[in-house]
Amino acid sequence: MLVSIDDHVVEPADMFEGHVPDKWRDQAPRVELVDGVEVWQYQEVKNGASGLNAVVTWPKEEWGLNPTAFAEMRPGAYDVQERLRDMSRNGVLASMCFPGFAGFAGSFFNSASDKDISTVMVSAYNDWHVDDFCATAPGRFIPMGLLPVWDPQAAAAEVARLAAKGCRSVTLPELPHVMDLPSYHVLDYWAPLFDAICDHDVVTNMHIGQGFFAIKGPPEAGIDNLMILATQVSAFSAQDLLWGGAFQRWPGLKVAFSEGGIGWISFYLDRCDRHYRNQTWIGHDFGKLPSEVFREHCLACFVTDPTALKVRHDIGMDIIAWECDYPHSDSIWPDAPESIYREMTAAGCTDGEMDQITWANMARFYDYDPFAVIPREQATVGALRAQAGDVDTSIRSKAEWRALAEAKAAAGA
Amino acid sequence: MLVSIDDHVVEPADMFEGHVPDKWRDQAPRVELVDGVEVWQYQEVKNGASGLNAVVTWPKEEWGLNPTAFAEMRPGAYDVQERLRDMSRNGVLASMCFPGFAGFAGSFFNSASDKDISTVMVSAYNDWHVDDFCATAPGRFIPMGLLPVWDPQAAAAEVARLAAKGCRSVTLPELPHVMDLPSYHVLDYWAPLFDAICDHDVVTNMHIGQGFFAIKGPPEAGIDNLMILATQVSAFSAQDLLWGGAFQRWPGLKVAFSEGGIGWISFYLDRCDRHYRNQTWIGHDFGKLPSEVFREHCLACFVTDPTALKVRHDIGMDIIAWECDYPHSDSIWPDAPESIYREMTAAGCTDGEMDQITWANMARFYDYDPFAVIPREQATVGALRAQAGDVDTSIRSKAEWRALAEAKAAAGA
Repeated sequence: MLVSIDDHVVEPADMFEGHVPDKWRDQAPRVELVDGVEVWQYQEVKNGASGLNAVVTWPKEEWGLNPTAFAEMRPGAYDVQERLRDMSRNGVLASMCFPGFAGFAGSFFNSASDKDISTVMVSAYNDWHVDDFCATAPGRFIPMGLLPVWDPQAAAAEVARLAAKGCRSVTLPELPHVMDLPSYHVLDYWAPLFDAICDHDVVTNMHIGQGFFAIKGPPEAGIDNLMILATQVSAFSAQDLLWGGAFQRWPGLKVAFSEGGIGWISFYLDRCDRHYRNQTWIGHDFGKLPSEVFREHCLACFVTDPTALKVRHDIGMDIIAWECDYPHSDSIWPDAPESIYREMTAAGCTDGEMDQITWANMARFYDYDPFAVIPREQATVGALRAQAGDVDTSIRSKAEWRALAEAKAAAGA
Repeated sequence: MLVSIDDHVVEPADMFEGHVPDKWRDQAPRVELVDGVEVWQYQEVKNGASGLNAVVTWPKEEWGLNPTAFAEMRPGAYDVQERLRDMSRNGVLASMCFPGFAGFAGSFFNSASDKDISTVMVSAYNDWHVDDFCATAPGRFIPMGLLPVWDPQAAAAEVARLAAKGCRSVTLPELPHVMDLPSYHVLDYWAPLFDAICDHDVVTNMHIGQGFFAIKGPPEAGIDNLMILATQVSAFSAQDLLWGGAFQRWPGLKVAFSEGGIGWISFYLDRCDRHYRNQTWIGHDFGKLPSEVFREHCLACFVTDPTALKVRHDIGMDIIAWECDYPHSDSIWPDAPESIYREMTAAGCTDGEMDQITWANMARFYDYDPFAVIPREQATVGALRAQAGDVDTSIRSKAEWRALAEAKAAAGA
């Protein structure tokens, strides 16, 4: 049984159709061809690649970070029916998908100058995500909403609106001060939103990447620095939430750290506990250890983290979850089940612990019943794979994908 | 047996006397009283506290970060004879001391505008450190030099000069780009220095703190963010050295990460290895895994890191060392032996592993024989403590320390 709480959708070009009120229809983001590259355009904002990072089944020499076109991607990146087949081939029952062009925490909309229109577009985005994308296959997706983070009252209203649709998971910036919003130390700014999040029992998700530019790296550093060190930012995010007082003020606040791995947690919590016990002159009073506060409020997921699994009890056996990261380059596809099983076995996990990691912890944390729609015996890796025996897993170049897409289009026309 | 590779000296006010050539004698840093606070002054640079962080045996409510006066500190901070007694009381055979006012990597001298004079002062500093401070008690200190990092040729010459005195350990900035020097990706800048370091079999030490301002934290964050997250910067430093090519170009380069703990290492190395195997399109070719490169070149030390000790074999049993951090607030004094023994026992360390961690790994890495001067039977925690039974370990306020210092001065006068 595998449920992934961090995958990525590549939004199809027609996603806003039918979701934007007439008045603003002309102002929705649209995909245009710029110098031969498909680009999302919106107000003065552009995001240079509809398929950024959608490298699954590309040959490695083509990975890079170049923008591309929908036709060059494996269709599972942007086509929900193909996505479902790819999930089944990888044994994944259900998936929670972060945005693509819109930014992991909606930074695309935050970058635009007319924020009132952005608030409208965020709702349109969510309607597409919940009512179209996720609704295609009940039981296969955990819907997650974007929020108008520039307006905490509007964000609170959006949380309520999403909850009414059954969407009780939202993505927020891991380090809002990096996108020129007040940090998580400024609790009064976030209060209307965090109130609503707690009132509706919503999980907030902090995905790595947005906050990376809090690290002033050497100008000469290669892409390795971003790819390897981005996970360090989860600790910065936890730090602001834990020591800034949010968890004291909102006992019901639940935070999932996405794609940061789990290996940072015990080191960070050991240091927090020592700090709390040792630096008493600062005057914090949590009524318990910081590590206990963290474990009451947080959960983290990983793709691969072999050493960290050995200290899973020090991290907290209840706060570890799994993710696939499809279709990004960190993803393991189509052999994620074999990979995670091998890693958990090497670390000595029991069957019960494997269940906790691969689905049960997320189910508890997100208050999500993975078997509500699909019975348990049809939800296993084996059962899902049996339905997807015909999924082609060959490596194909961008050019080959494009030729295939053109041939399909011609056949369909 | 305990050897600490990260402690701190609080330089006494008369340290430059007898070490600065006549021509520049008037220009040496000096301690002056500014608004009732003792401050080091040099060119246009000031460092606001001669005793910054020298909190050992202060009551916790006085820790803070306020500048103070020599008289308010426990004398072991700045008086080498008292330091030796405090080391013995804590069972510490030998200690490697980073600077105080001069900055962990000599940033005080780098901040001054006349760098030629700074180069002179760095040599004067080193002469004091090696010939006075460390020479007071042969076998009790591992000398470590500062370098004129703004001038790699001069730094190379200083390495040779230090090596001729028997000092084969130097401190360098963990992130030089944060002090406006070229980063460790700019290998040609560092080449003369790294050549000299390898020629003389010198260990470079990267202490946390200097690079902390590479992290753009929230303006509202308290001192907790600095104190807890500064250890994250060791991974940034390792990243630049490992992926910037320094370890390939200088197979003999040895780097010790100081005060960053050891809990970051396995998480970081797991991610590096995965990146190396997975992102082959980037084209790195180390001829081995990044984790293997790291273990050939690096060592790290910790004060307390209970969970990390459980995965010591994944970190690398040969690259873990211990530190005391006296007289800073992270230090455990006078019960460091009990603390580290308890932690290693809880992690299941064997006697041989305990020896590796507490002295043998550092001895190999620094090519240092801890028993060259002091026979092994006199070097144990028990033997050292037996000599220091009269050391007063009471907690005393700044005012009490000041009264005590004044009484001593009056008695001596």
